[in-house]
Amino acid sequence: MYIEKINSPADIKGLSVNELTVLASEIRSGLMNRLSKRGGHFGPNFGFVEATIALHYVFDSPKDKIVYDVSHQSYVHKMLTGRKDAFLYDEHFNDISGYTNPEESEHDFFNVGHTSTAVSLACGLAKARDLKGDKENIIAVVGDGSLSGGEALEGLDFASELESNFIIVVNDNDMSIAENHGGLYKNLEALRKSDGKCECNLFKAMGLDYIYVDKGNDISALISAFSKVKDCDHPIAVHINTLKGKGYAPAEENKENWHWHMPFDEKTGESIYYGDGESYDSLTCEYLMKKMKADKRVVTVVAAVPTNIGFTEDKRKEAGKQFVDVGIAEEHAVAMVSGIAKNGGKPVFATHSSFFQRTYDQISQDLCINKNPATLLVNTASVYGMGDVTHLGIFDIPMMSNIPELVYLAPTNCEEYFAMLDWSIEQNKFPVAIRIPCNGVIHTNCDIETDYSDINKYKITVQGKDIAIIALGDFFNIGEALAKLITDKTGAAPTLINPRYITGIDTDMLNDLKKEHSKVVTLEDGILDGGFGEKIARFYGADEMKVYNYGLKKEFIDRYSVEEILRENHLTPEQIFEDIVG
Amino acid sequence: MYIEKINSPADIKGLSVNELTVLASEIRSGLMNRLSKRGGHFGPNFGFVEATIALHYVFDSPKDKIVYDVSHQSYVHKMLTGRKDAFLYDEHFNDISGYTNPEESEHDFFNVGHTSTAVSLACGLAKARDLKGDKENIIAVVGDGSLSGGEALEGLDFASELESNFIIVVNDNDMSIAENHGGLYKNLEALRKSDGKCECNLFKAMGLDYIYVDKGNDISALISAFSKVKDCDHPIAVHINTLKGKGYAPAEENKENWHWHMPFDEKTGESIYYGDGESYDSLTCEYLMKKMKADKRVVTVVAAVPTNIGFTEDKRKEAGKQFVDVGIAEEHAVAMVSGIAKNGGKPVFATHSSFFQRTYDQISQDLCINKNPATLLVNTASVYGMGDVTHLGIFDIPMMSNIPELVYLAPTNCEEYFAMLDWSIEQNKFPVAIRIPCNGVIHTNCDIETDYSDINKYKITVQGKDIAIIALGDFFNIGEALAKLITDKTGAAPTLINPRYITGIDTDMLNDLKKEHSKVVTLEDGILDGGFGEKIARFYGADEMKVYNYGLKKEFIDRYSVEEILRENHLTPEQIFEDIVG
Repeated sequence: MYIEKINSPADIKGLSVNELTVLASEIRSGLMNRLSKRGGHFGPNFGFVEATIALHYVFDSPKDKIVYDVSHQSYVHKMLTGRKDAFLYDEHFNDISGYTNPEESEHDFFNVGHTSTAVSLACGLAKARDLKGDKENIIAVVGDGSLSGGEALEGLDFASELESNFIIVVNDNDMSIAENHGGLYKNLEALRKSDGKCECNLFKAMGLDYIYVDKGNDISALISAFSKVKDCDHPIAVHINTLKGKGYAPAEENKENWHWHMPFDEKTGESIYYGDGESYDSLTCEYLMKKMKADKRVVTVVAAVPTNIGFTEDKRKEAGKQFVDVGIAEEHAVAMVSGIAKNGGKPVFATHSSFFQRTYDQISQDLCINKNPATLLVNTASVYGMGDVTHLGIFDIPMMSNIPELVYLAPTNCEEYFAMLDWSIEQNKFPVAIRIPCNGVIHTNCDIETDYSDINKYKITVQGKDIAIIALGDFFNIGEALAKLITDKTGAAPTLINPRYITGIDTDMLNDLKKEHSKVVTLEDGILDGGFGEKIARFYGADEMKVYNYGLKKEFIDRYSVEEILRENHLTPEQIFEDIVG
Repeated sequence: MYIEKINSPADIKGLSVNELTVLASEIRSGLMNRLSKRGGHFGPNFGFVEATIALHYVFDSPKDKIVYDVSHQSYVHKMLTGRKDAFLYDEHFNDISGYTNPEESEHDFFNVGHTSTAVSLACGLAKARDLKGDKENIIAVVGDGSLSGGEALEGLDFASELESNFIIVVNDNDMSIAENHGGLYKNLEALRKSDGKCECNLFKAMGLDYIYVDKGNDISALISAFSKVKDCDHPIAVHINTLKGKGYAPAEENKENWHWHMPFDEKTGESIYYGDGESYDSLTCEYLMKKMKADKRVVTVVAAVPTNIGFTEDKRKEAGKQFVDVGIAEEHAVAMVSGIAKNGGKPVFATHSSFFQRTYDQISQDLCINKNPATLLVNTASVYGMGDVTHLGIFDIPMMSNIPELVYLAPTNCEEYFAMLDWSIEQNKFPVAIRIPCNGVIHTNCDIETDYSDINKYKITVQGKDIAIIALGDFFNIGEALAKLITDKTGAAPTLINPRYITGIDTDMLNDLKKEHSKVVTLEDGILDGGFGEKIARFYGADEMKVYNYGLKKEFIDRYSVEEILRENHLTPEQIFEDIVG
C-alpha cells in the first residue's frame, strides 16, 4: 500500500500518475473505513480525492499554503499530511477533528467550519506574504455551494485587487448540501457545458483570470492545470468539475443524503443507526406544511440546510412556492423575510444558532429597526447541540437577545414551542425568534398559553418560597430537578418559574419575589456573559436578594462531553444545591 | 415653480419632458437650499435627480414599491412624495430624516441606512406579492458602491430565482464613498464603455436579464428604459450611468469630498464650519503612518470609509501597499486581517461601531477561534457618536465583548488609546478590539501602562472607600465628576476605577473592594443589556455589595439629543448621586 508510506506531501512527489491513481483508490478505502464507522462528510471528500493529491503533488505545503473553505472536504488533505492513521486505524479515529485545525498540523492554517471564508482568509495570507516580500503560492479551495455566501462573493471581488500570486480552486460538483440555488449556478453550468469557454463568466466579471478543468477527477489533468498556475503572478480561478461522492454508487446517486452521512453498512449504504421516536425537525416540518396549506401567505425559508427542519426533497416539492431555499445566503434570508413580512406574508426562516451569527446586522437593521413580524427559528441552540468549536449553539442568547425590538422566546416543551410558533406566525407586531428545544421532545399536560403578546411576562409553574428558580428553555428540566432536590432535602418547596422570554425581565414578578424569597437562581442553556441571568442580577443589584446565575463559561469548547461541561460549570442539581443551600 | 405643486407622484404624470427637465432644475435648487445649510448626502442625490423623476413618472408609487439601497439618495424621492417642504423651507428641515422612513410616508418601505440591503428587502416584497397573487412592480435601487457588499451580492444571486416581476436599478456613478475597490468594477467599466454590450456581464453571470442606459441623467432616456421594464414578468437589471454630484461643479470635480458634505457656501463650495483642534481621525492616521513607515508588516485596512480614521486621498497614496480599502466588504475585511495576522503581518482594521455589526460571525469564527492577533478599531462607538437610528454606536459592547478570546479595550484618554493601539499591534497573542474615544481628545499627565497583556486587570485611579465607581471608556469622565460630587457632598472620597478591559472582570480587585466598600457603581457608554456592568452585577450577585449599573436602555433611538438621552437614563452625576446616596 502506498498510503502506508505517506507521512507528508513530500512522499507523493516521486510517484507516477499510475501510482497516484492507485493511491487515490487506497485513500477512498481509508475514507470508507472511517466514514462507514464514524460518519462524516462523505460526498465532498470522495469527490475531491484526485484534486487533493494533485494539489499536494504540484504545490509545496506548508510553504505553499492551501486554505479549504468550510474544510469539510479536507479529509484527504489530512491523510496526505501525516494524519492517515485517523482513517486507516479505528483506534486513531479520535486523533483528528472534522475540519482543518492548526493544532493538528502545520499544513492547516485555520480552524474553520462555516462556509464561504477561504478566499478572504487566503487573501490575508497573500497580503502578508507580499508585505514581507515572500514568494510562496497561496491557494484557496472553495466549493460551488459556498460561492453564494456574501463573504465568499466579497472575497472573490476583492481578490482581483491583489497584484500577485493567488489561486482560487473552485471545486464545482454542482451541489450545495442540497441542490444549489441562485443565478450564478446557471453561469457555472454554462461554463461546464462550454468547457469553460462561454464569454459570460462570473469569475472574469469579478476581475479574475480563469482556467477550466473539465476532468476534475483526473489526476493527470489536474496536475497539468495546477502546474500551469503554480507561481503565477496574479489572481486566477481554476474551475474544476468534480463528481460529488465519486467512487461510491449510493453517494453518486443521492448526493444530498450523502453530503454528510451517519455510520452505514458499506455493502448496502444503509445507515447503521436510526433515530427513533419524535424529533423537532420532522415535527416542525409537519406543522409548517399544515400551516402553509391552510394559508398561502405562510412561507418557509431555509439557507441550504433544509432538513434541519425536516424539509426533505419530497416535502420541499410538496410545499412548492411556499418553500424557499436561498442557498448559503443567511444575510439575504433575514433581509428577505423582513420584506416578506412587510408586504403581508408570514415568513419563517430557520437555521442553526451558529449560522445566525452571519446575520447580526440584518436582524438588527433589516428586521428589528423595521419591526416587521417575521419569525426566526433558531436550531441547535444549546449545549446539547453540535459539539464542534465552529458550530457551537451557546452564543445566540448574548448575540440576539440584546437587539432591541426582537422578542426571543425559549419554549420548555413541545406544546409550548408550537404554541409560540403559531402565535408568532399569526401576530403582526413583533419580529420574533424562537429557540427550538434541543433536549429531546418533552410533552406536557399542563395548559399552555396561546397568546404571547404580553411581552416579558414570566410564568410561575410552582409557587413556593425562600428560593426562586428561574429556569430558561432547555434548562427548565434542571430547574425542575433542582426544585425537587431542594424540597426533598429541606422540606420547603422553592418557587419554579418558566421565564419564556429571553429578551427582557418581568419587573412586576421580580419585585413580588422579594416578599417571600431571599434567593433567586437563574439557569440558561448558553454562556452567562451578556446572557439572561445577568439581567436578573442587574435588576436585584442594589436589593437584599441574593442572585445565583448558572450557565456556561464564555469560552470556545470543542468536541466536548455534555456531561463534563455541565459538571465543570456547576450545572448539576446537586452542585447547585451545594452552592446555594450548602 | 413646478415643485411647489408636487404633493405626490401623481402630480408629475401629466408633465412633458421639457417640464420635467425644469422640475429637475428646481429640485436641485431645493437640494442646494437644504444641503448648503444643513449638510447631508450631496453627490448621491444630485446625481440621481433625473432617475428619481423618471421612476415616479413611469411607476405608480406606493402601489409599485421602490426600495432604495442605503437610502442616502432618497432626498429627491422625498421631494416628489409630499416632503418637498423639508428642502424648500428652512423651518421644515426637521420634518424628515436623511433616509427612507415608513413613519414619514407610505412611499417609504424600510428604515435603512446600512449598505447593500435593497435587493434582498425588495426580494421579500416581491415574494409576498407573488404569494398573495398581487401584480405590482417591485423596484430595488442600488448604487455601484453597494454592490461589493456581501448582502447585495447574495441578493443579486438569489433575485434570478424569482420567476416574476423584479427590477433592479443599478445607479452606477463609478464611485463608492471614495473610489471603488474590487474586480467587479472593472466589469462595470467594460459595460459602460461598450454601451452595455460586452459579453462578460456580472448581472447576466448572476442569472439576470439586463439593459443598459448610458444617459443616466437624461429624463427621456430613463423614462424610455423604465417603461420597457415596467410590468415585465421576470427579474431584470437596469444599469444606468449617472454623474455623481451632477449640476454642481465642485461636487462633480471632487466626488469623494462631496459624497456627504457639511454646510457650505454655495458660491465657493467652502465649508461654513471647520472642526478646530485635535481629532482622533487625524491623530490615528498620523500614528499609523508613522508605524507603517517604521515597519513594513503593519497594514491599515478600511471598508469604504477611509477618512473615518483620517486617510484622505494623499495619505492613502503615501501609505501605498500598506493601506487597503476593501470597499464595502466588512466581512471580507475581518477575515482578511485574520489571515494577514496569521502570516506574520500586523493588520489594523477600522470602521464604525454600527458597521462592525456586519462582522459578528467573522470576528467569532475567522478571527477569535483562530486567536490571530489582528487589531480592530471601533469608531463612533458611543452615545456621542452618530445619531441616526441606523448608525447607532451603543450596541457594540454586548455584540463584541461576549465573544470568547477577543480582548476589547476601552481607553479613557488620548495617551491610553495610543498606548493600547501600540501594544495591540506589537503583541502576537490576542485578537484585540479598541473603542476609539468619542468624547473629544482628552489628554492626561498620568503614567500610562504600555503593556496590556495581563488581561482583565482594572486600574484604581483614586483609592477611596464606601463607594467604588467603575467607569468605562468615554464615561470615565462621568465617573470623575461623580467622584468629585460625592467627595464634595459627603466629605468622603469614593474609589475611582478605570477598568480598561470590557471583555472580562478583575475578580481579585472586585473581591478586594468588599473590604472597605458597600456600593459599586458601574458606568458604560452603551446599552446595559448584555453589557459590562451586568458582569459586575453577576459577580456580586450573592454578596452583600450593592451594585448600581448605569448606561443606556436597550432601545433604538433616532436623531436624539445626547443631553436628553443621558438625563433620561439617569446618567448625570447629580442623578446618580441622588440614586445611590440619596
